[in-house]
Amino acid sequence: MPPLPSELAYVPFVSVEHMMGLVHHLGIERVLIDLADEIETDFRRWDLFDKTPRVASHSDVGVIELMPTSDGETYGFKYVNGHPKNTKEGLQTVTAFGLLADVNSGYPKLLSEMTLLTALRTAATSAMAARHLAPEGARTMAMIGNGAQSEFQCLAFKAICGIDTVRLYDIDPAATARCAANLAGRGLTVVPCRSSEESMEGAEIITTCTADKQYATILTDNMVGSGVHINAIGGDCPGKTELHRDILLRSDIFVEYPPQTRIEGEIQQLDGDHPVTELWQVIAGKAEGRRNARQITLFDSVGFAIEDFSALRYVLKAIQGTPFFTRLDMIADPDDPRDLFGMFVRGGPGTNA
Amino acid sequence: MPPLPSELAYVPFVSVEHMMGLVHHLGIERVLIDLADEIETDFRRWDLFDKTPRVASHSDVGVIELMPTSDGETYGFKYVNGHPKNTKEGLQTVTAFGLLADVNSGYPKLLSEMTLLTALRTAATSAMAARHLAPEGARTMAMIGNGAQSEFQCLAFKAICGIDTVRLYDIDPAATARCAANLAGRGLTVVPCRSSEESMEGAEIITTCTADKQYATILTDNMVGSGVHINAIGGDCPGKTELHRDILLRSDIFVEYPPQTRIEGEIQQLDGDHPVTELWQVIAGKAEGRRNARQITLFDSVGFAIEDFSALRYVLKAIQGTPFFTRLDMIADPDDPRDLFGMFVRGGPGTNA
Repeated sequence: MPPLPSELAYVPFVSVEHMMGLVHHLGIERVLIDLADEIETDFRRWDLFDKTPRVASHSDVGVIELMPTSDGETYGFKYVNGHPKNTKEGLQTVTAFGLLADVNSGYPKLLSEMTLLTALRTAATSAMAARHLAPEGARTMAMIGNGAQSEFQCLAFKAICGIDTVRLYDIDPAATARCAANLAGRGLTVVPCRSSEESMEGAEIITTCTADKQYATILTDNMVGSGVHINAIGGDCPGKTELHRDILLRSDIFVEYPPQTRIEGEIQQLDGDHPVTELWQVIAGKAEGRRNARQITLFDSVGFAIEDFSALRYVLKAIQGTPFFTRLDMIADPDDPRDLFGMFVRGGPGTNA
Repeated sequence: MPPLPSELAYVPFVSVEHMMGLVHHLGIERVLIDLADEIETDFRRWDLFDKTPRVASHSDVGVIELMPTSDGETYGFKYVNGHPKNTKEGLQTVTAFGLLADVNSGYPKLLSEMTLLTALRTAATSAMAARHLAPEGARTMAMIGNGAQSEFQCLAFKAICGIDTVRLYDIDPAATARCAANLAGRGLTVVPCRSSEESMEGAEIITTCTADKQYATILTDNMVGSGVHINAIGGDCPGKTELHRDILLRSDIFVEYPPQTRIEGEIQQLDGDHPVTELWQVIAGKAEGRRNARQITLFDSVGFAIEDFSALRYVLKAIQGTPFFTRLDMIADPDDPRDLFGMFVRGGPGTNA
């Protein structure tokens, strides 16, 4: 019988099944609200974070990225792929997992699935931004693009912004039907629509989340009235945008991290010095958010490492005392740190050490 | 009962205990020989690899690094920390884990501990380099620095280069005693020594592997005779070197990847344009290795992502059909890739889906 690994060698691991269990246990709206608060708290202390650009490995069919960050106490990174052609093969376009580690020792302290968690944190970030940017008293949201992210967005805007009606549109009516069915009985008035114009009738908030990797024009200029808040989350990599350039020119644009958004977001269509406001500055009271009822605000969201960091730290707190994790024997931790070989030998067959 | 995750959602995971079991099962010398062959094969096709520099997050007490690479079919990265002060706190200076993924889908295909695997691949790389650089018929190695890496180095040089005698020295006699005890009964003549000079008597190969994060001089110029091969593995980060500069000036220097070694290796002491030879060029027959019996060859090794990639790919092959792995439910893989929310709902309590 080999000796048991030391306590330090174990890393808590949250599987997909455990993440689903945890979110059901806490309630998905509670989780979205808590995530929005965690992310907002970290945006407020933005300057503390080490903001490394993501490290991408591109191929003809997709990209694999590592997104690291650190607040000086905790280090985190997310592994995430993006393969638009995967859907045709019955695979997810995006899969992800993440890790937290202790900066002081370098030892990992959490490994977690992040496919589900990324959907949750993206929706929480969108709604958190809208809390600062959307018009007062907004109750109706157009949800354009009814794929994997859509239900999470609708529920986050309900829980965090008080939206009570969502108007759904997708070029694939089956996607709209599925989204509507998934949202049934959750306290939202759900209106399936046959065009994006129809979905935007009466909507104070417009969320676009379509997935084609090409310059698309989901919204044209004449479709967007004054006073709305646009939450654009589908334009998130080079060559992938959703909004007509003229809409951008009429909007006040808010972004997560300009060096990344200028490459990946809607604003890749604009000059590199087009003025944008960093969302964290609005949250920290250093810049204005919405100034009046006629202004068009646009959150050009591409996803940023700090949002993943906040989400992972929330999960690490939330699993304490629950059965929603296991412990992985993932790093060697010999009793005598200089004696790795001795640990190996004692871990072998026929020893009684 | 929630539905079971699909086959695609599972990622093979090799824990520390399983890695120890696998290496015992195959035999450590067999593993070292196989790893050397895998690494040599990948060095021969060097041009195919995406050679991103490592992504480091530094703090006052250490560093956490991500080391990604890809050969166009498989993507791999290693997480590794370096915290010299950890030993005093009963922790490992270095812990590591690694991942392989399919470039075509972005789906992970192996997660593995790499603390033990890194020790094995480092030793295999050292001995593989010596196979091309050490003098003909070398039988004796001086092993200076008898810490966590030392036994792996000695066994790799025995298995891969035919070394039959190792002469051990460490400033801490207890480290030498432990290394000697760990090597007993493994077919090596082990000679504990009281000084580095003594350890080098009759040695055709000199391996230095000390751990202080400072400019140290483990070897001075007058200690090194002509014709030897020096395997310098302890100088592996900025500010950390082991050899006196004058030795470097008398040696023909071989490195893994010059942009990294000029920052991290012994050659950080030299001008940025000091001539060095890339090891892969020797292996591929594009550059000369050892030219004569009087030449001093120096392998200034800092560790490179391709070595980890080779090691992980070897592990993925080696575990097939063995009990030395488990399967982690690490990435969400819904039946319908656009219906992540539906998977979440069906994973909840009280559903029979």
